[in-house]
Formats: sequence, C-alpha cells, structure tokens
Amino acid sequence: MSLRIIFLGTSGAIPTVERSLPATAVQRGREMLMFDCGEGVQRQMVKAKVGFHRRTKIFLSHLHGDHVLGLPGLLQTMALMDRKLKLEVFGPEGTRAFLECVRESLQFGLTFPVEINEILDAGRVCDEPEYSIEAAKSNHVMTSFAYAFVEKPRPGKFHPEKARSLGIPEGELWSKLQHGETVTLADGKMVKPEVALGTARRGRKIVFSGDTRPFRGFAEFAAGADLVVHDSTFDDALGDKADEDGHSTPSQAAQLAKASKAKKLVLTHISARYIDSSLLLEQGKAIFAETIVANDFMVLELPLKE
Amino acid sequence: MSLRIIFLGTSGAIPTVERSLPATAVQRGREMLMFDCGEGVQRQMVKAKVGFHRRTKIFLSHLHGDHVLGLPGLLQTMALMDRKLKLEVFGPEGTRAFLECVRESLQFGLTFPVEINEILDAGRVCDEPEYSIEAAKSNHVMTSFAYAFVEKPRPGKFHPEKARSLGIPEGELWSKLQHGETVTLADGKMVKPEVALGTARRGRKIVFSGDTRPFRGFAEFAAGADLVVHDSTFDDALGDKADEDGHSTPSQAAQLAKASKAKKLVLTHISARYIDSSLLLEQGKAIFAETIVANDFMVLELPLKE
Repeated sequence: MSLRIIFLGTSGAIPTVERSLPATAVQRGREMLMFDCGEGVQRQMVKAKVGFHRRTKIFLSHLHGDHVLGLPGLLQTMALMDRKLKLEVFGPEGTRAFLECVRESLQFGLTFPVEINEILDAGRVCDEPEYSIEAAKSNHVMTSFAYAFVEKPRPGKFHPEKARSLGIPEGELWSKLQHGETVTLADGKMVKPEVALGTARRGRKIVFSGDTRPFRGFAEFAAGADLVVHDSTFDDALGDKADEDGHSTPSQAAQLAKASKAKKLVLTHISARYIDSSLLLEQGKAIFAETIVANDFMVLELPLKE
Repeated sequence: MSLRIIFLGTSGAIPTVERSLPATAVQRGREMLMFDCGEGVQRQMVKAKVGFHRRTKIFLSHLHGDHVLGLPGLLQTMALMDRKLKLEVFGPEGTRAFLECVRESLQFGLTFPVEINEILDAGRVCDEPEYSIEAAKSNHVMTSFAYAFVEKPRPGKFHPEKARSLGIPEGELWSKLQHGETVTLADGKMVKPEVALGTARRGRKIVFSGDTRPFRGFAEFAAGADLVVHDSTFDDALGDKADEDGHSTPSQAAQLAKASKAKKLVLTHISARYIDSSLLLEQGKAIFAETIVANDFMVLELPLKE
C-alpha cells in the first residue's frame, strides 16, 4: 500500500498567490490523515481531487488561526456532501472549545460524528492495527505538538520452501503464516510464523514538526524517518526573528534531519517574503543533501518497504 | 471617483477549482466595502492585489459558514500586517458572538479596532457623507439581509458664464458654489448654488441580494440600480430545489432586475454542479438582456455619472 503525501498548503501565517495556508494530507489506502488544516484547505482538496468521504483523522499542531481555520468549512462541506463516516480530530487543549463555539455560533449541523481528542502530553495519541501516531511537545509560542506517523512492521517475506520442508500443507495455513499467525498442524504440532518468514519488514515513518523552534529530543523523535516535514519559515540570516517568532531556519531543520538520520527533508511553512524559495533550498542542502522545499500540490510517494 | 467591483468569490456553499467562496469587494477611492466574506477571501485579496490597509467595511448577508468563515483569517492577517485603521463589520444578530468566540478560542490579538454592528431591522445601517448602506430583510433559510450601496447625489455641473453674469468673482466663491454651498457677495447679496449649477448628478447604486429566494419588495429596494448582484444558485429547472434551499434561479433574478429597472444584473453564488455557466446566462438573458454571470476576479467599473 503506497503512501501519498500531498502538500495542500505550504505558506507561513499569510497566504500568497502560490501558497495556501498550512495543511498536508497523507493518503494511506482509503484513509486520509491530515496534519494542520489552514483556511482554504477544502478548496485545495477539491483542486487536488482528494475527496471528502475517506476515513479521516486530522492532527492540529497548535491553535493558531492559520493552522486551524480551514477546519469548520471542511466539516461543513463534508456535511453538505452527506458524509456519514466518523471524523477524528486531534489537537491541543482548546480544540473542542474552538470547534464547538464555531458550530454553535454558525448553527451548522453535521451528518457524521466528529470525535475530538485533546492531547495533553507527549506520547502515542492514536493506535491503529497498522500504524500509530506519536506526539512530541514542540517549542512554538504557545502549546504545540510535532507528530510522527509510524507504521508497524509487517511480517517478513514468506518462504514456501521452508513451509513445505516443515510439512505444512499449502492453503489456509500458509495464509495464516504469511499474516504472522502461529498455526497448528494436523498432528498437533505448533509452528510459529518466524520459521517460514524472512525478517520483519519495517514500516514507514513521516514526521511533521508543525510550527516550532528546533527542540530538544526532535532527532530521537524523528529517528530513521523516511520523511521529515519541518518548519522553515525564515532563511538563516533571519535566525533571530525565527527564534523570536517560534520558528526554524533551513539550516536548523537540515541539522535535525541529519541528526535523525532521516531519508528526506521537506521544508515548509514558507514566509510570504520568499517569492523564490531557492535561498531556503540552498541553505538546507548545504547541510543535508536530501532537502527539498514544499510547493502547493506537490505529491511525494513512499512505496512499501521490502 | 470610479467604483470598482471585484468578485473575489462566486461559488455556492461548496468551492470549486474555478470559484472561491462568496465575497465581493467594492473599491471606492481609498475605501473598500466588502459584501460577504467567505473562506479563502484573504488569499483572493492577495491575488487581486486589493491590499489590507484600506478603510474597510464588511457586510455579512447571513451567518452561514460559507459567507463568513473568511473573516477571522482576514482579521488575523491584517493584524500580522500591523493594520491600524478601524474596521467595521455589519451583520445579523450573532455576528459578535461568532467573532468573539473565535478570537477567544484562538487567542489572537488585533492591532486595530473592530467595530461590530448587529443589524436587527431593515433600513439605513450606515450613513457616510457621500453614500449610505441600506439593508432589506431577504428570504433565506435563516435571518438574512440584502444590501444596497447608495451614493448621494453630487452637485450639478458648474456653469462659469452664469456665475459671471451674476457678478460673482472667480476664485473662492466659485469653488464654494461648485461644492453646493450658498455664497455671500461683497454687496451682501446671497447666491444659492443652484443658480450656477446644472441639475444635481445622481449617485451610483449597487444591490447585493445575498442568499435568498425572490422576496417581496426587492424591486423597490433595487429600483434604478446600476448593478444588481443576485443569488442564482440553481438553473430554472431546479426551481423547487432553489425554493427549498432558500435560493433563486436566473429567471427569477432577471425578472427582479427587470422590474427594478436596473442597468445590469450579475448572477452569482453559482452551484458547484455548473462547470459551464452558459445555461444560467441564457436563462437570465432571455428575460433581461444585460445579464452576466460572475467569475472569480471579474472586475466591473462604474464611472461617475455626469
């Protein structure tokens, strides 16, 4: 199952002609995970043909308007499209108050349940059979979280010759072994899946920093990530301003990507002052070669690992 | 002083690739009046190069999300740009609660005063030296208003030969007459401006229906308008659906424009189902020839009347 990362909005706090407000979607099969939900995201989804009926979880890094003001309109449009599936929202304390006050003051009805999960501490905030979402406290100017999407390992590759040599008949039992289950043979002998499988295959990992200064623990949080999507609001020459406003520069993001041994770094949350982002790209690449700068509607694909 | 009407968003409740959510700006000199304020309007303003520092008044037709969810982000961006000028918002009861709850739950500070005027009844809601804004109760599925921008008449054209024949010396006294003031000559004789001026020149009038079914009184409200901007969500064949949802069809809008002796009709709030709006245009033009369909970033100019 391929992972598609769709950059729906890549601006800083003020949108530009080229960049909409922050939002990134991760499509995994029929599910969509969205990280931040800036104003205009519903229209970006229309343009990117993402669809409004998928199983959906939305993770808010913090409660600044530029990261969350797309959420009420998105919910409303989903309701107008008669969505039925539950939608889950994860965000800092205050997420519920924000959504409820908008719903009450604009009196809009929903056709589907919205489950709001307020995150109080770092740790696993969502645990699914095939992946989890981990949160880390980041370092912005208000309560803020970074998120990691972490796929669980899949069973190793199945070796039919080993199964045959153990006298396991082809069919249902092979299928169980392939899915990592222990099977019982006709003679009562139990066979663990490991004996017929290669080493477990690692899952994929994507880390979203949200708005943040570089923070202690990020390298461990992002260790071995296939993709790190990091705040890079200002270029290196504006390091003081970045620090003051709770943001990062390309060099800082690249140092963290390098320290975490990530495979690829995507710089995002680009200030409106950069019509051309090549300066940011250069500063990042000088430290971590596998750096790119996000653009709206850029799509990255992460294939399954063998 | 020319009037520029800039269609910033022309969609119905759901935005499309081509149409952003409802918002129309009227630029009059250094002032901007905005009618409805749908999600994404701040980015549309960036694209249309409208600017965030003008004297601004915003009029909300009703409190559905698609007409107001651009307002918090617009205010926030204006604050990030260090706007100082007061901004005025006019809307139905509930406008204050909406804005205050968003400001509180997202904790955003403003650098300028926002004056909220809740409209309870039809009538003049804003009276400026050179124009007024009139509100009429419209007929949507919740409390809703149509608005008319009505310029006051300007003094008629100045006739120097008449001023001379009355023995009025060129200079300051001519200037006063041109501005419609009575002057006193050296001999104590008083001269009213009418004697040196042609007939008063009519101001311009623009009417915004907001979301509404055709409603009684609209033709009088819009009488003689230079421009009527009217709800035309669905085509004539979907008249029942339009009625059920509180909207209008092209024929209904065109009949009202005709009855009000308007000069031009702009159909807007176009449902996402119309990729091509030519059907709506045909239905409108069949009844009122001076009909057009709004598109995002369409600009109309209304010159001063002589």
